[in-house]
Amino acid sequence: MSNQPIKCKAAVAWEPNKPLSIEEVEVAAPKKGEVRVRIIASALCHTDVYTWSGKDQEGKFPCILGHEGSGIVESVGEGVTSVEIGDHVIPLYTPECKECKFCTSGKTNLCQKIRVTQGQGVMPDGTTRFTCKGQEVFHFMGTSVFSEYTVCAEISIAKINVDAPLDKVCLLGCGVTTGVGAALNTAKVTKGSNVVVFGLGAVGLAVIQGSQLAGATRIIAVDINEKKYKLAADFGATDFVNPLSEENKDKKIQDIIVGMTDGGADYSFECIGNVETMRAALECCHKGWGECTIIGVAEGGKEISTRPFQLVTGRVWRGSAFGGVKGRSGVPEYVNKYLRGEIKVDEYITHNFNFEQINDAFTALKGGDCIRAVMHYKQ
Amino acid sequence: MSNQPIKCKAAVAWEPNKPLSIEEVEVAAPKKGEVRVRIIASALCHTDVYTWSGKDQEGKFPCILGHEGSGIVESVGEGVTSVEIGDHVIPLYTPECKECKFCTSGKTNLCQKIRVTQGQGVMPDGTTRFTCKGQEVFHFMGTSVFSEYTVCAEISIAKINVDAPLDKVCLLGCGVTTGVGAALNTAKVTKGSNVVVFGLGAVGLAVIQGSQLAGATRIIAVDINEKKYKLAADFGATDFVNPLSEENKDKKIQDIIVGMTDGGADYSFECIGNVETMRAALECCHKGWGECTIIGVAEGGKEISTRPFQLVTGRVWRGSAFGGVKGRSGVPEYVNKYLRGEIKVDEYITHNFNFEQINDAFTALKGGDCIRAVMHYKQ
Repeated sequence: MSNQPIKCKAAVAWEPNKPLSIEEVEVAAPKKGEVRVRIIASALCHTDVYTWSGKDQEGKFPCILGHEGSGIVESVGEGVTSVEIGDHVIPLYTPECKECKFCTSGKTNLCQKIRVTQGQGVMPDGTTRFTCKGQEVFHFMGTSVFSEYTVCAEISIAKINVDAPLDKVCLLGCGVTTGVGAALNTAKVTKGSNVVVFGLGAVGLAVIQGSQLAGATRIIAVDINEKKYKLAADFGATDFVNPLSEENKDKKIQDIIVGMTDGGADYSFECIGNVETMRAALECCHKGWGECTIIGVAEGGKEISTRPFQLVTGRVWRGSAFGGVKGRSGVPEYVNKYLRGEIKVDEYITHNFNFEQINDAFTALKGGDCIRAVMHYKQ
Repeated sequence: MSNQPIKCKAAVAWEPNKPLSIEEVEVAAPKKGEVRVRIIASALCHTDVYTWSGKDQEGKFPCILGHEGSGIVESVGEGVTSVEIGDHVIPLYTPECKECKFCTSGKTNLCQKIRVTQGQGVMPDGTTRFTCKGQEVFHFMGTSVFSEYTVCAEISIAKINVDAPLDKVCLLGCGVTTGVGAALNTAKVTKGSNVVVFGLGAVGLAVIQGSQLAGATRIIAVDINEKKYKLAADFGATDFVNPLSEENKDKKIQDIIVGMTDGGADYSFECIGNVETMRAALECCHKGWGECTIIGVAEGGKEISTRPFQLVTGRVWRGSAFGGVKGRSGVPEYVNKYLRGEIKVDEYITHNFNFEQINDAFTALKGGDCIRAVMHYKQ
């Protein structure tokens, strides 16, 4: 147990849409039921960029962003029993208390124990552990891994195999688990099926990986950036569609898919966050049984629409968050799958930066060549 | 086999929204793969009223409506092997060919073998079997049971137990099977769950019955017509909500349901056909696992909408047609369940008419006291 604050570097988002500022922050000691983690590596995800941009109406500033990271437990607060100093861990934006109605339902991974305070950018007791220049700084998604040290609730910490390289498995804190899990846990893709994936970012590629693991025989990758097709093929995609190509630009993407697949997709996945693509992803599904899973996060206030006939004739519209994976029980297992060579992680990493170069990672992710930019923290 | 036309009475809809006209029609002999049925009883369903009203843009006139009926095989066309003269049958608007991609998929009841011609109001060979006053009259939903004799494709005929009273089990041709099946086959309501049903017509009441059979412990019935609560209670409803009551009229129905159920419905069903209610039915579902099944048929062109966040946080939006029941294999089993006392049918019948009084049945169904009006044909 430690009751001393730590001074360290963190990337503070003082206000929306302005470069992050590397600042010296003070990270308070973990309180009861909390854990302080030294972050070793993190990756930038579009959700960080979304909140940073100011479009997320629930975003609170100043804050420390970052939810895809890994690290080592530095100290623990009173009553913490599930991890100890030196444990290798992945912070979880979807906690797992194993006690609430949601955790005990056996039907969902969406633990609600600390949802309200997490959404408010504070710890469960309503306060923040970050201070910078005398000002309180908000947490983000219960993780705030863009800091050399962060404090999380114990229920937001997954203890993982110490053999796993932390600068790789940080990706299992969000993107890879989200995509692979959506295919395996949420949609439950079946052997021999055809799958359509909209959007070839890390999550879309991970859905392709998960679908291949599940034995899908045809995996159609849809993206307007053709530079991503090579990587999609490496992950298992068999067909590629650019909705804006000369040949396709006057057609509806749902019609193209239905035509390619003798009636439509058995499973489709939306990994972009665009409500029009969400509609297309449903409507490209096969009558009678096609299931569309929405993973992308749409801008606040936007709505999805379709004719109800689409559902009455057998299509299903569902969604997936963190791949339906329960964080503390599931993430360690994903790490072990990676260590056994059963799932790819390294292949998503297209860029590496020192933590201080985090604004370069933002620039890279917004370009068309980056899948994941990993930031390495000083040891 | 018979190759003689039959002259008989039928209720012809010459044009939308005008009283049906009892006319002498000529019913041609069944062609290859067709069956001619003497109708014994039929019931009026809101889908008949919808097409009759002219709002169904695909409705073709003049036509003979009616899709919830029962009868006795009068003659069969060439090659018909699955039924013979004298068999008791229920005509099916959802056929079952047992050969098409849909029938063999094991995933849906939506046989597509004759979908196109059925939608066009003709038999699979593209012609009609009905003539009146020298004019061809269109079929409707492949059944057209508002005629003393009708012709259906063999794959649209379910042979049922000869012990079943035809003037009761006609209801298994649509409403009762649709509702009970939606609960048991589509949503797969689980023991101990809570269920919300929007709309207390025959389908909604049948969903209540199916949910009770499945072991739901709480069944909330929602309707603006409080006169239907008594019957809903008889079928198993435990709670009743009038969204327009003095107490409720300023609240959103989804908020009322969420408040009543500690977070929302495990299963909800929309049995009205109103796109706003379809939204409410989804949004009243429990975060993490609630599933909304749409059964009601919305007006052409209307769309359903919601925030995608509703799905990403674990709610599922699906639909059901004919309760997911395969007609020729499933309906005979529903008839047997009725004969064994396992499902109620008689209780839906609030009105009885002679076939010639069919316009009175329309008037009754549009009033607030009618669940099902059964029409009895001259023996």
